[in-house]
Amino acid sequence: MVGKILIPEIRSLIAARDFAGLRELFSEWPPADVAEVIVDMPEDDRVIIFRVLPAALAADVFEYLDVDAQQSLLHCMAHEQVVAILNEMSPDDRTALLEEMPSVAARQLIQLLTPEERRVARALLGYPEGSVGRLMTPDFVAVRENWTVKEVLDYVREHGQDSETLNFIYVVDERGKLIDDLRIRNFLLRPLNTRVDEIMDRSFVHLTVNETQEEALNIFRKYDRAALAVVDSNGVLVGIVTQDDMLDVAEEEATEDIQKIGGMEALDEPYMRISLWRMVRKRAGWLIILFLGEMLTATAMANYQDELAKALVLALFLPLIISSGGNSGSQASTLMIRAMALGEVTLRDWWHVMRRELQAGLSLGVILGVIGTVRVAFWAMIDKKYLHHQPPVYGAHWPLVALTVGIALVGVVLWGTLSGSMLPFLLRRVGADPATSSAPFVATLVDVTGLIIYFSIALLIMRGAML
Amino acid sequence: MVGKILIPEIRSLIAARDFAGLRELFSEWPPADVAEVIVDMPEDDRVIIFRVLPAALAADVFEYLDVDAQQSLLHCMAHEQVVAILNEMSPDDRTALLEEMPSVAARQLIQLLTPEERRVARALLGYPEGSVGRLMTPDFVAVRENWTVKEVLDYVREHGQDSETLNFIYVVDERGKLIDDLRIRNFLLRPLNTRVDEIMDRSFVHLTVNETQEEALNIFRKYDRAALAVVDSNGVLVGIVTQDDMLDVAEEEATEDIQKIGGMEALDEPYMRISLWRMVRKRAGWLIILFLGEMLTATAMANYQDELAKALVLALFLPLIISSGGNSGSQASTLMIRAMALGEVTLRDWWHVMRRELQAGLSLGVILGVIGTVRVAFWAMIDKKYLHHQPPVYGAHWPLVALTVGIALVGVVLWGTLSGSMLPFLLRRVGADPATSSAPFVATLVDVTGLIIYFSIALLIMRGAML
Repeated sequence: MVGKILIPEIRSLIAARDFAGLRELFSEWPPADVAEVIVDMPEDDRVIIFRVLPAALAADVFEYLDVDAQQSLLHCMAHEQVVAILNEMSPDDRTALLEEMPSVAARQLIQLLTPEERRVARALLGYPEGSVGRLMTPDFVAVRENWTVKEVLDYVREHGQDSETLNFIYVVDERGKLIDDLRIRNFLLRPLNTRVDEIMDRSFVHLTVNETQEEALNIFRKYDRAALAVVDSNGVLVGIVTQDDMLDVAEEEATEDIQKIGGMEALDEPYMRISLWRMVRKRAGWLIILFLGEMLTATAMANYQDELAKALVLALFLPLIISSGGNSGSQASTLMIRAMALGEVTLRDWWHVMRRELQAGLSLGVILGVIGTVRVAFWAMIDKKYLHHQPPVYGAHWPLVALTVGIALVGVVLWGTLSGSMLPFLLRRVGADPATSSAPFVATLVDVTGLIIYFSIALLIMRGAML
Repeated sequence: MVGKILIPEIRSLIAARDFAGLRELFSEWPPADVAEVIVDMPEDDRVIIFRVLPAALAADVFEYLDVDAQQSLLHCMAHEQVVAILNEMSPDDRTALLEEMPSVAARQLIQLLTPEERRVARALLGYPEGSVGRLMTPDFVAVRENWTVKEVLDYVREHGQDSETLNFIYVVDERGKLIDDLRIRNFLLRPLNTRVDEIMDRSFVHLTVNETQEEALNIFRKYDRAALAVVDSNGVLVGIVTQDDMLDVAEEEATEDIQKIGGMEALDEPYMRISLWRMVRKRAGWLIILFLGEMLTATAMANYQDELAKALVLALFLPLIISSGGNSGSQASTLMIRAMALGEVTLRDWWHVMRRELQAGLSLGVILGVIGTVRVAFWAMIDKKYLHHQPPVYGAHWPLVALTVGIALVGVVLWGTLSGSMLPFLLRRVGADPATSSAPFVATLVDVTGLIIYFSIALLIMRGAML
């Protein structure tokens, strides 16, 4: 934030080739601030800044850049610098970079790593995409249960340098199996001669490498931990996941859901960065599906052409009625999608939800139905008394029209609410993502059926009089 | 998770009044697991379990319960136990409980606290709702810059017991002003005789008490910290906020946005817990507004009654065309709302977004326009050749109908995309929440204007032939 003010100064230092000054300016900044200033700079200036940064800071700053910026920087940097930064990066951020790159380029980069780091990178990339294995870092501190607190702290002082977090210390047995996870506070608060097994409670929470990141998020939500251990299928401790990665996972998930609710495929890229054509493709897919679905309205209406010709007034209220069904359906489905994502509602709650939504839908329908009926009646009477349209706006049979509109609204809103709330359950039941029942999807579904409800009620009420 | 399997055993221990056995069973469980088992139990059993839990574990478990469960437990517990738990709770969780209670009840509870804890509780509740002050905890470890690492670790061992986190150690000057925040790793990794000022980099990130929780979230997003210091207006360190609170803030925000996008007020309560009538009220508000807005479609259509009477075929495609506009508008507004919430798009990007959406909208419109035209033409020709409806389905002038539908779709989709993408900017510009431009809201707006676009294009193309 303070950084932005200094951009002119940075520019002039670059222009003057005053690299010592530049290095001094940046040396005390938090890496996130350096990253923020850098993204607004032209490519050439970025490369210069990276060249003057101290090696450790350069790697930290690099981790804060998004993958696109990282890739283009790698293209421009000198070979030795690429090697230094890749080897300094923390393994989880490096995995995120490598998995976004074309596989040839990723393979070339992996060749630049030291044998040890190469082994790590290969191992992490070996886990399926979206799994905990891809998210974890293998840098942690593990100790044995017969050590003392002093031995642990000495060990940390000597070997903890690379650990992603020192907030948790893990206890393993002789075969590397996780037997406890202890907060660092347990060590900091005890006398130095306490033995580890005196501190241990042997109750620990862990993730497994093949779990999905969504499952991991739910476990983090439940236990409120800053970091969780990851074990393989034998219970051997192989890595840790920290909470800052979870914040990212949670936000990505919410973004995907929101975009699906908006009626499109999840973009998977920031709006400002995705190419126009990739975005149009992701939006066109659903738009076409919805359009084809909505075509059924034309087909359905073709069946009611005779009625329409006799009572054209029905056409006037058509958009009003079908959109009210769509809106109430959007509300209900959105509510369910989010409640399911947060685990507040599960599959077996469907019956409970159904009864609630039945009541909610009926109430909402009656409210809109009354407003609609009053609107038609009010307008017809105003017309009759003061305006004297010829023929009268809603015809001589306006009480029947008002009644039709009111009852149709109750039916359509109730139907919209019920189908909107049940669709996410149905989708999850068949293994699909509930968020697919987007607002526009539900609206389209309800448009077609709402139209049939409307005309059926009209036929029932107006038969003999107008139809 | 393991807990659920043991529920029968727990039940039988309670039935047998075997409190020692119950206490032993729970003593080694993580608090989150105990909480999970407890929420599924009847009230009476909960109270019994709380009575047998060791005091520290009871307070931890209590913090994991939601506010409703906490309140009803407080009602049933013995006085001394209420006192013990309230005084043991961490101040930030206690604030969350107190701010949800009726003010009389909250005041009574505050009276039960020790004078020191009462002071803390009053101070935290003094900050505005939704501010960082409400979220923070005043339990942290602060040290001075002339101390050595050994002195710091000794100090932590003696005074760190209550600190919410020991992952960060804060350095303050003689007046309590924050001058640095250091990860515990800096102390753990250095020789014991290192002085604190040798470790310090004097660059630190902090929040201020009156900042909103949304602002705090953005700072957490940027700096990826496990905890951040909170200072008052004089720069004095008054508390810390930890990342697990931020995960909650991020999810609440996403939930609010999602519910608004679905076209309702944010519920602010889990779906399964909110009372039916409160929920209906939150949903009815927007539904009525949308309904009143949609009524304009009836008004607009009344102006086109003559045209409709002459070319009834226009009515058939009306739902198809206006909903296509609504769908493309929903997509665009949802995209913008989320991109703005994540800070990917800011107000000054409006022009850039406008040009992108112009291209996207035109492309999407042409795609749907072509499909629509082909559909009409295809069906008319099938009818002419094989079905021989009398009169022909889309009339003798079907090429004009096909053309009208196609061009109207381009116009309506383009208009929907543009207004959907610009509305969130407009709302933010006037200080409103961009998420108010929900999918149904945009759809309603576009329905009315889309209808006018459709009939205007029809008048232009069909004049002379059918109209």
